[in-house]
Amino acid sequence: VIDPALHQMPDEEFDRLTDHGGRLAQSVRGLVAAVIRSAVSSDELDAVRREVEALTARLQAEEVSGSVGIQANSAGQLRAWGNPVIGIRNALAPPIKVELDGKGGVWAECVLGGQYEGPPGHVHGGISSLLLDHVLGEGAHAAGRSGMTASLTLTYRKAVPLGPVRLEAELAPADQQPAEPYKAVMHGRLLGGPDLHLCVEAEGFFVLPKWARDRQAADEVS
Amino acid sequence: VIDPALHQMPDEEFDRLTDHGGRLAQSVRGLVAAVIRSAVSSDELDAVRREVEALTARLQAEEVSGSVGIQANSAGQLRAWGNPVIGIRNALAPPIKVELDGKGGVWAECVLGGQYEGPPGHVHGGISSLLLDHVLGEGAHAAGRSGMTASLTLTYRKAVPLGPVRLEAELAPADQQPAEPYKAVMHGRLLGGPDLHLCVEAEGFFVLPKWARDRQAADEVS
Repeated sequence: VIDPALHQMPDEEFDRLTDHGGRLAQSVRGLVAAVIRSAVSSDELDAVRREVEALTARLQAEEVSGSVGIQANSAGQLRAWGNPVIGIRNALAPPIKVELDGKGGVWAECVLGGQYEGPPGHVHGGISSLLLDHVLGEGAHAAGRSGMTASLTLTYRKAVPLGPVRLEAELAPADQQPAEPYKAVMHGRLLGGPDLHLCVEAEGFFVLPKWARDRQAADEVS
Repeated sequence: VIDPALHQMPDEEFDRLTDHGGRLAQSVRGLVAAVIRSAVSSDELDAVRREVEALTARLQAEEVSGSVGIQANSAGQLRAWGNPVIGIRNALAPPIKVELDGKGGVWAECVLGGQYEGPPGHVHGGISSLLLDHVLGEGAHAAGRSGMTASLTLTYRKAVPLGPVRLEAELAPADQQPAEPYKAVMHGRLLGGPDLHLCVEAEGFFVLPKWARDRQAADEVS
């Protein structure tokens, strides 16, 4: 459903920005966490701010315009660099890497630190929903049922401690699936705490929009 | 449900960190966006990364330990500095400021840029759920029905364009409310696009946990 031509760049450029840009974003994750916790003097906070503004200007000396959420290499491989869940160049993203579980489902693990905190010592409930929305969507794609989230229901069983979390998703049982092949019901969950116990359950309904189905049909004909 | 004593600091310290720390976090928001878009040389990306690491170390020279999501001033006012939705010192947060609408509900507005992108040019569905989870929770608090999110259902009507969004939440009609005063059903929505049309609807079920009700009762007695 993405037009790679719109976002294509030479492979060498793609690879170097993934590598060097990814390491830069990782350093900014550390900066984000330090800004929340720092208790240095007001003068020092202001001095650091001026340096951050100067670094931002240096990065802006050359930049891509338009949508940056997804880029493609020459093979048409898509990389969601700027995605707030999986984007390796987006300091907001933990980032997670969604893996196939070999049984038709997907999983991912990450460690959530202070910048994801809602109730003291615990992950903000909305962060759990952000991660689950994404993992259920990737699970639908992995199951051959790509689509946009039409609805998502989250059931919060236990507060999620800051620290390691595991996310899982798979197609709901066949008797819960709609008849149309472009719709899918996904189940998923977030496990947390040192023992990775069940904290949040998710059920998502995914639908491939009509314009995307029409385009798929056209691609198959051409 | 938070013990202010655990997070208290002198008012002067509280105010200066809010002010100077908040401005620093705002500058880091610009840096996060620039990292995603930058196409400067690999050497320059590496040089900026080393500078970011040095700034992080300067901020870490003095920092608070433990939970930083919520701090209190001497009046017991709580400030969620590190919150990923409203935290003015958290560069992940837009941040939003939730306001009373004068009719029992709440609203907030913000502008979502490239670091919140999922589908090209559009807000990641999970970001909509992150913001709605928080606004519905604040709406429950404003309506005198504070609680934790027990469940949240999001219905995605239209893709949300990057740009201005408005969030609203209020108690669901009385005939949809549970009998117990420590439970609440909230309705909310995200409006987006230049005309702020309806994009996402949310229904949330909030429950104040038993330990918090017991503590409230003890506070009222003492």
